[in-house]
Amino acid sequence: MNKLTVDLGDRSYPIYIGSGLLARRELLTPLVQGRQVMIVTNETVAPLYLKAVQTGLEGSRVEAVILPDGEQFKTLVVWNQIFDALLAAHFDRHCIVLALGGGVVGDMAGFAAACYQRGVGYIQIPTTLLAQVDSSVGGKTGVNHALGKNMIGAFYQPQCVIADTRVLETLDDRQLRAGIAEIIKYGLIRDRDFFKWIETNIKALLARDEAALSYAIERSCHNKAEIVAADEREGGIRALLNFGHTFGHAIETGMGYGDWLHGEAVAAGMCMAADLSHRLQRLDSQGLDRCCNLIEQACLPTWAPATLSAERMLELMAVDKKVQDGQVRLVLLDAIGQASVHGDYDQALLQETLTEMRA
Amino acid sequence: MNKLTVDLGDRSYPIYIGSGLLARRELLTPLVQGRQVMIVTNETVAPLYLKAVQTGLEGSRVEAVILPDGEQFKTLVVWNQIFDALLAAHFDRHCIVLALGGGVVGDMAGFAAACYQRGVGYIQIPTTLLAQVDSSVGGKTGVNHALGKNMIGAFYQPQCVIADTRVLETLDDRQLRAGIAEIIKYGLIRDRDFFKWIETNIKALLARDEAALSYAIERSCHNKAEIVAADEREGGIRALLNFGHTFGHAIETGMGYGDWLHGEAVAAGMCMAADLSHRLQRLDSQGLDRCCNLIEQACLPTWAPATLSAERMLELMAVDKKVQDGQVRLVLLDAIGQASVHGDYDQALLQETLTEMRA
Repeated sequence: MNKLTVDLGDRSYPIYIGSGLLARRELLTPLVQGRQVMIVTNETVAPLYLKAVQTGLEGSRVEAVILPDGEQFKTLVVWNQIFDALLAAHFDRHCIVLALGGGVVGDMAGFAAACYQRGVGYIQIPTTLLAQVDSSVGGKTGVNHALGKNMIGAFYQPQCVIADTRVLETLDDRQLRAGIAEIIKYGLIRDRDFFKWIETNIKALLARDEAALSYAIERSCHNKAEIVAADEREGGIRALLNFGHTFGHAIETGMGYGDWLHGEAVAAGMCMAADLSHRLQRLDSQGLDRCCNLIEQACLPTWAPATLSAERMLELMAVDKKVQDGQVRLVLLDAIGQASVHGDYDQALLQETLTEMRA
Repeated sequence: MNKLTVDLGDRSYPIYIGSGLLARRELLTPLVQGRQVMIVTNETVAPLYLKAVQTGLEGSRVEAVILPDGEQFKTLVVWNQIFDALLAAHFDRHCIVLALGGGVVGDMAGFAAACYQRGVGYIQIPTTLLAQVDSSVGGKTGVNHALGKNMIGAFYQPQCVIADTRVLETLDDRQLRAGIAEIIKYGLIRDRDFFKWIETNIKALLARDEAALSYAIERSCHNKAEIVAADEREGGIRALLNFGHTFGHAIETGMGYGDWLHGEAVAAGMCMAADLSHRLQRLDSQGLDRCCNLIEQACLPTWAPATLSAERMLELMAVDKKVQDGQVRLVLLDAIGQASVHGDYDQALLQETLTEMRA
């Protein structure tokens, strides 16, 4: 088992990474002993892992709420089901919310923990690769609005993240690849050596080689933890983590939440951002090729869907948290392993990217 | 004009109290200049004051969302209307939410500001006496759930509170008295001299004497600001502000939100809490009489409604944010001007209070 720490002063917390951690009661006991615990999970994960987690919580009063599975259910209405369960169980403000699932479950459970009685504790047990390498770490929580992704939410840090690599055995291939997209992101934005390692090991990752996955999760979490510790509320460097996401969110919203997986949309979005970086003469053609080739090798989409016009993409991108004074700020690549944020770029070249980078 | 400060380090903010402040552009300008401003108000307040506030915001891009008026609309569904408006207007995370209304508008607008794009700025312009003396100060924001009041929310401080005493001229009598309930609360829990002052000046307050109201608002805000500065997140002393509220919330929830005004329910709840304090031999009979007499003189209810049984009250009180390990913690009076929190009291005496303090 590896242990990393997200260093945020008195809100610091550990990330445990290893095989079979779900059964390791000693990781949870210090946080939950004598407390009420509400497990928030979904219909896909509950039959697989809910019982194992409940067993590890013996001695606490444990309840569970099982949400429908999918990004299209990351709404205020479904979010309210968590409060229904908490209040029906008469849970008080010393309770703990435990997220057992992927990014959608983690985002909704964390946001519910942030708001239930104005804040209770929460624990993340991510069960998808994407959640293990990205969304479970860093305290971004929230739900979608019909007009924009993740527009309603809070920065709210968990007390602990437990990434059990063994649960990835039951993950379907599409979800696995969606997680690899975010792994590639860390290499692209700030870790050139890691990018090279992924190029060398992409087949092992796709084949679910446990050592390769463990290493990729650990190195991704290490990158994420460093960034979050430096800039918890995204005043600066943290924005780099949104590489590919402004394009990606537009695809997700435009196609209807749940049609494309988040990681798939980010993959296409990263290719689009790299393409624009190249058009703006920030990124050389070799860098662009390496970026898109690796994403293609990971069996991930490298273009936006043909059904989304450039005009519609632009319109959707205008509703983005990084917009300032009407200008969409974009994360661009300067080289493999180096990114920066820009608000002042040639709009005509963005238009070209949006027009040409469609399937 | 008087200026108080809520002292919270780098999140400190001013409370301005005075007559005609709505028209004082210079109070708003430093906070809103060049920003998008979303005014959140309701159907009652908008025809009276929306235009005046909009005029004071010339130079900013200003939009408004007008919510239905009443505690029964303090729900997640109505709350979402604020996000609809923010997103339809393409407001970015540098925007400001401006609450123009009573406690319900302030709680919902503040909670929306806390969650829109994970947090934007907000300003409170309270237009009811209750909001001016209590709910607009201190950062408690949120909405109700069918199973419990204020169960979903956040601690989120405004950047400024502007209490224009002139707007109280248009407040109806019932709303005015509801505000007086919270003014009396400050006297009861920590300010014996203020309580005496209210006893002497209750007729002037009910007659809307502007000097009396101004003094009462200022002294109430002073008390509130001191408590919030000492204990922002209610780990200790801030709980005293909930005097009468556990009983009061049970009345509000039990009668259906909006039937009793919050201040009315708190008034009855304070009499019940004082009654229990007396039964527990914490408060002498003279103290109990002074408490209930003043509330009666303010034309506020001193009993729970007859239609709520003691059993139903107990059940509703069990869903309270101050519950810990199944025990309802109550704020009790030790004397006029002195209160304390208790979880370990004789349940039979609570039962007596609930049975006998019904209209």
